[in-house]
Amino acid sequence: MTNSGLLTPLYGADAVAERLTDEAWIGALLAVEVALSRAAARHGLVAGEDAERVAAAADGLAVDPDALARAAVEGGNPVIPLVRLLREAAGAAGSAVHPGATSQDVMDTALVLLVRGASGPLLGDLRGAADAAAGLAATHRDTPMMARTLAQQALPTTFGLVAAGWAAGLDAAARDLASRVALLPVQFGGAAGTLAGSSPAVADTLAELLGLAPQGVPWHTERTRIGALAGALGVAAGACAKVATDVVLLAQTEVGEVSEGAPGDSSSMPHKRNPIAAVTARASARRAPGLVATLLAAMDHEHQRGAGPWHAEWGTLTDLLATTGGAAARLRTGLAGLKVHPDAMRRNLTTPDPDTGHAAALVSRILDARAGDAR
Amino acid sequence: MTNSGLLTPLYGADAVAERLTDEAWIGALLAVEVALSRAAARHGLVAGEDAERVAAAADGLAVDPDALARAAVEGGNPVIPLVRLLREAAGAAGSAVHPGATSQDVMDTALVLLVRGASGPLLGDLRGAADAAAGLAATHRDTPMMARTLAQQALPTTFGLVAAGWAAGLDAAARDLASRVALLPVQFGGAAGTLAGSSPAVADTLAELLGLAPQGVPWHTERTRIGALAGALGVAAGACAKVATDVVLLAQTEVGEVSEGAPGDSSSMPHKRNPIAAVTARASARRAPGLVATLLAAMDHEHQRGAGPWHAEWGTLTDLLATTGGAAARLRTGLAGLKVHPDAMRRNLTTPDPDTGHAAALVSRILDARAGDAR
Amino acid sequence: MTNSGLLTPLYGADAVAERLTDEAWIGALLAVEVALSRAAARHGLVAGEDAERVAAAADGLAVDPDALARAAVEGGNPVIPLVRLLREAAGAAGSAVHPGATSQDVMDTALVLLVRGASGPLLGDLRGAADAAAGLAATHRDTPMMARTLAQQALPTTFGLVAAGWAAGLDAAARDLASRVALLPVQFGGAAGTLAGSSPAVADTLAELLGLAPQGVPWHTERTRIGALAGALGVAAGACAKVATDVVLLAQTEVGEVSEGAPGDSSSMPHKRNPIAAVTARASARRAPGLVATLLAAMDHEHQRGAGPWHAEWGTLTDLLATTGGAAARLRTGLAGLKVHPDAMRRNLTTPDPDTGHAAALVSRILDARAGDAR
Amino acid sequence: MTNSGLLTPLYGADAVAERLTDEAWIGALLAVEVALSRAAARHGLVAGEDAERVAAAADGLAVDPDALARAAVEGGNPVIPLVRLLREAAGAAGSAVHPGATSQDVMDTALVLLVRGASGPLLGDLRGAADAAAGLAATHRDTPMMARTLAQQALPTTFGLVAAGWAAGLDAAARDLASRVALLPVQFGGAAGTLAGSSPAVADTLAELLGLAPQGVPWHTERTRIGALAGALGVAAGACAKVATDVVLLAQTEVGEVSEGAPGDSSSMPHKRNPIAAVTARASARRAPGLVATLLAAMDHEHQRGAGPWHAEWGTLTDLLATTGGAAARLRTGLAGLKVHPDAMRRNLTTPDPDTGHAAALVSRILDARAGDAR
Repeated sequence: MTNSGLLTPLYGADAVAERLTDEAWIGALLAVEVALSRAAARHGLVAGEDAERVAAAADGLAVDPDALARAAVEGGNPVIPLVRLLREAAGAAGSAVHPGATSQDVMDTALVLLVRGASGPLLGDLRGAADAAAGLAATHRDTPMMARTLAQQALPTTFGLVAAGWAAGLDAAARDLASRVALLPVQFGGAAGTLAGSSPAVADTLAELLGLAPQGVPWHTERTRIGALAGALGVAAGACAKVATDVVLLAQTEVGEVSEGAPGDSSSMPHKRNPIAAVTARASARRAPGLVATLLAAMDHEHQRGAGPWHAEWGTLTDLLATTGGAAARLRTGLAGLKVHPDAMRRNLTTPDPDTGHAAALVSRILDARAGDAR
Repeated sequence: MTNSGLLTPLYGADAVAERLTDEAWIGALLAVEVALSRAAARHGLVAGEDAERVAAAADGLAVDPDALARAAVEGGNPVIPLVRLLREAAGAAGSAVHPGATSQDVMDTALVLLVRGASGPLLGDLRGAADAAAGLAATHRDTPMMARTLAQQALPTTFGLVAAGWAAGLDAAARDLASRVALLPVQFGGAAGTLAGSSPAVADTLAELLGLAPQGVPWHTERTRIGALAGALGVAAGACAKVATDVVLLAQTEVGEVSEGAPGDSSSMPHKRNPIAAVTARASARRAPGLVATLLAAMDHEHQRGAGPWHAEWGTLTDLLATTGGAAARLRTGLAGLKVHPDAMRRNLTTPDPDTGHAAALVSRILDARAGDAR
Repeated sequence: MTNSGLLTPLYGADAVAERLTDEAWIGALLAVEVALSRAAARHGLVAGEDAERVAAAADGLAVDPDALARAAVEGGNPVIPLVRLLREAAGAAGSAVHPGATSQDVMDTALVLLVRGASGPLLGDLRGAADAAAGLAATHRDTPMMARTLAQQALPTTFGLVAAGWAAGLDAAARDLASRVALLPVQFGGAAGTLAGSSPAVADTLAELLGLAPQGVPWHTERTRIGALAGALGVAAGACAKVATDVVLLAQTEVGEVSEGAPGDSSSMPHKRNPIAAVTARASARRAPGLVATLLAAMDHEHQRGAGPWHAEWGTLTDLLATTGGAAARLRTGLAGLKVHPDAMRRNLTTPDPDTGHAAALVSRILDARAGDAR
Repeated sequence: MTNSGLLTPLYGADAVAERLTDEAWIGALLAVEVALSRAAARHGLVAGEDAERVAAAADGLAVDPDALARAAVEGGNPVIPLVRLLREAAGAAGSAVHPGATSQDVMDTALVLLVRGASGPLLGDLRGAADAAAGLAATHRDTPMMARTLAQQALPTTFGLVAAGWAAGLDAAARDLASRVALLPVQFGGAAGTLAGSSPAVADTLAELLGLAPQGVPWHTERTRIGALAGALGVAAGACAKVATDVVLLAQTEVGEVSEGAPGDSSSMPHKRNPIAAVTARASARRAPGLVATLLAAMDHEHQRGAGPWHAEWGTLTDLLATTGGAAARLRTGLAGLKVHPDAMRRNLTTPDPDTGHAAALVSRILDARAGDAR
């Protein structure tokens, strides 16, 4: 929300953040307007050539984000001034802009487009982290180490089972998040949500043109989809936090069972080897639960358009994408380069001949299930 | 968490809270222990008659919750003293108690049993509220009223479409919550999560005996299921909050388009007619997002048993069930008795011949989808 | 909020929870009603002997919490049926009950009384934990150990400075919390918050009779005091979490620099020595931030009486008191019995002659400041 | 956190956000480094002319935020590469850069500087909103209107008392926030927090040079000040939310008792008059509680430098400043232009001769207290 980008690469995900910039917002808003005009044309509500003139105008429109931002204050969202700009640019075809639509139709659909764009690299990083964990699990299926419960050494396990558990959590989170994103529909209801002046068929065409799920009915103030998406992002961040916490604990000087491939240095102690990818993954993940709570608490959109809850979603959801993406990206980096120290694991074991139970079989269960899913 | 029950019926759900009492916890913990002994017997790890003696001992065990609670402090959970009690009661069969298990196996599985028990009435109330809303939608499919956006009158809609939107949100939340609950598996991994001294087959038998989903692998510190359940409960609370907020707003003196069938009175103003079911549903729902955040933030269970995050789940999840249940129960009461005032709706309309667009068709889409799901 | 007390002693504070029971609520509500009648009598609004008859009736009133709870549902709070009971019991003096008051006057003032009651043991535990930490700091002012940054060994410090930092945080939190509690005023405004039918002077007398701060003006929907109290409780929980986390980390098998005096056992591993007081203090503290968020989000009380936000405060604030109290109580137990192992600290040092800088002087700064505050 | 500025003016505070940019961060970090060198010189730890050369180098340093951001990833914070740049720029005086300091000393002190910078306009807007409310209270001290409880008309009050209550809450929040900000101290402890290689006297000089409160002792992982600041910001947001919610409700078409001076328009309904300043103030305020929870949950900094909790603070605290600032700025705008409609208030009253009790006297209490504070 703040304008600072200085800290973004540190615990944010560049690739995710790049898809949530001003330019991305403006691009998505215009894409929705163009599709709106074309969908209306398809059903005879505006002339086909007018719709194409709108598309050409949108294509040529140079929007200054700062100016648009300031113009957005008056009405409370950027669609109002953007429609004005687009109408001017479209000239005689200006009446074919924004047919039957309300601001929220455009904002919500653009938000869905942004979520889809950002979730690409986010899911890529979650799955990449899971793959790295699965690779560690396969390699160390039988590498014995002490299990620790309540932070005390307990009985033996294998590092393979530890890493397989990491993969299982990351996989589950990615699977659920992907399904939530895929179900996000187009939004189109018009000023009162009744599709007055348009029709359900136009809404379905709009979805088709944008490659989104159809809406069934407008969902201006029925926000279970947003809440469920927020929950899935929170679970993804939590799955990352678990793994990152384990890495930090296993990398402690006194434990020494893993270390990062590119540990961080220090401004005062050049000898330090900080597990900085895991540390910043933890930091990023910690920011998610509060954002999820904000989105769940903002499900109470009043009547047919929320008087605040709706506006609270925009920045919160994009921040949640960015911070969850940051957790996944940093964790992936940390796991991809993770160095495992079986000798230290062996040293920390108190028994020479450890009974690791069914650890290896459980690793196989997880890896086989992954292989099955990938087919 | 506090011992006060005074406020429970006010904004809690009796039927849900009843399934989360001390007695419910103790019953579930003992049910898991009995099933553990029997599952071990099925696989020859303990004698069959010993398992039955454990079952008989559990059946006859009179556990004083206060005494157990105090004995739980030392080890940090109530399973440790309960196992002691059960072993004593089982006499010679005492060694057949808790075979191959760790405290978390029993706590987690008991928690799953409690969640299933509590989710019965909770889902019943969510669906009951949705049914009431759908009934209103069918009756008032064509009843015109003003849509309101940003709390200002906008253009006409129908009350049927408003109520159908309520039903759609409650249905979606109930569907998702039910699927989350159904997937909650048994937990069985033993001290290090390796099933040392037992086996995956015992775990599957345990699931079968308790009627739970099999676990695949132990999930002591892989808490995506808990996080996803929390998210689904948060969405359910949010779906209730949306509807309750609308009812409160439509029932305002100056709007007067709905009123509750059993409005609340006042200690100082006998003439008041407060929409108290909706008010307390809102109150109950508002408590959910913070609890969801707590559970998501507590996904970072360290190593093979969390040193705090695990213990933080117990009361938080049960409180979340209770408060979401309260929201659903109070909302159902409010909707079931809701009085709709079409004359007031008509009075608030500024046009004599309102264009409600495709409202009626959209109502049908929602009601038809419900009918389809119910088949 | 749930009716389960089984887990309360585990990570709740008995002494705090005891002050938040149904009986405590009912006692506080009646104490406010009696004081209301007497304050009105002092200013001639009701007869003095009637006020005393109300007091006698309250004294003899046997209120069944369950019955009251059920009667509270209709109007949305327990004051309405309690006033009815008290009026009946007061017979001819019944009109001297609840003079000029509204339910919220009684609920809010009773809540303030409960907060004061519960904050006694809570502050006692916070300060007791701080005292224990300060004792450790004095004893180990010069005991060298490795400082750890980002979970890696850094440069030497002393355990005294570590423990003094713990004391400083706990002291700051206790000081702030105490000042927030002391400023909580009486609430008295009547149905519209205008003191119609009563007067500011009666409100001041009411405060005097109950030993509370005067209100200035009624604060029915001006909830900065509740928000600030919530913030102070959250900070107290956070101060406990920091110390408990350090204890858990220092007590790790591989670090071994401290251990608890009464470590927890395990249902499966009798050899385990879990730092269970610190673990459950962490668990308790982790529940606070979400509850604080709920209370801050519920500051938006509508108009002259919140339609949900007010009702959401009751259970949330009492839960927050209980869980913060639990964190403080468990931490105090853990610190009071903490065993320090200077030999292990020495072993973990990489230099034979550690430079601990100004650690000892900084310890003195903290201990001297404490001594100054206590004078 | 995301790079989008498009939505900032909408519900963010420009003046606050401007003080939290990359440039602001870099400027603050360099200011701390310069002061560190000068403080060390004052106590003879580095040569005075070297310190001035460092100052000159800092003055001439052109830092590319993007490049610095990328260089920050390796070590986990931007101080490490910035120190490197500054050392290079200082040439022979390079050893006088960062004397006795650790990264957190610089990050924390810079954060305090940023908080002070941002809190200027934020407090200005809070107080400006309070002034506007107080002005309304003075003007409408005796303007009768209906009080509303649980969203139902109750008994009469005056609009003056309503607005005075708004002022009281905003004043209390501003007062508390200002005191929290003023107490934020310098941070200086060195790598292990022991001031090894420096001294408490240098820390005090550093505070003096930067115009900050002295620290007493380093507070690297004693975060009660950050938690208390977060709480105060959350209370400020909550105080804004209460007022904004009232404005939205009073401006409803059916109530019509107030309207905004510059109401928002609509992309589809040119006749709409949306209370958009209040709506976006609500949206901004709603984002605060979750951020407060994140900061409170992040108080558990491990050992002598948090392995994630610390890094989680930076963006969360700046976002919290921005969103609270947004709530205050938008609310101030809304209140400053608020149009009050006494005729509509009169129309909504059910009694011709309303008894407004002691409303006027209570208004005076609040306005007199304000006048007293201002002296």
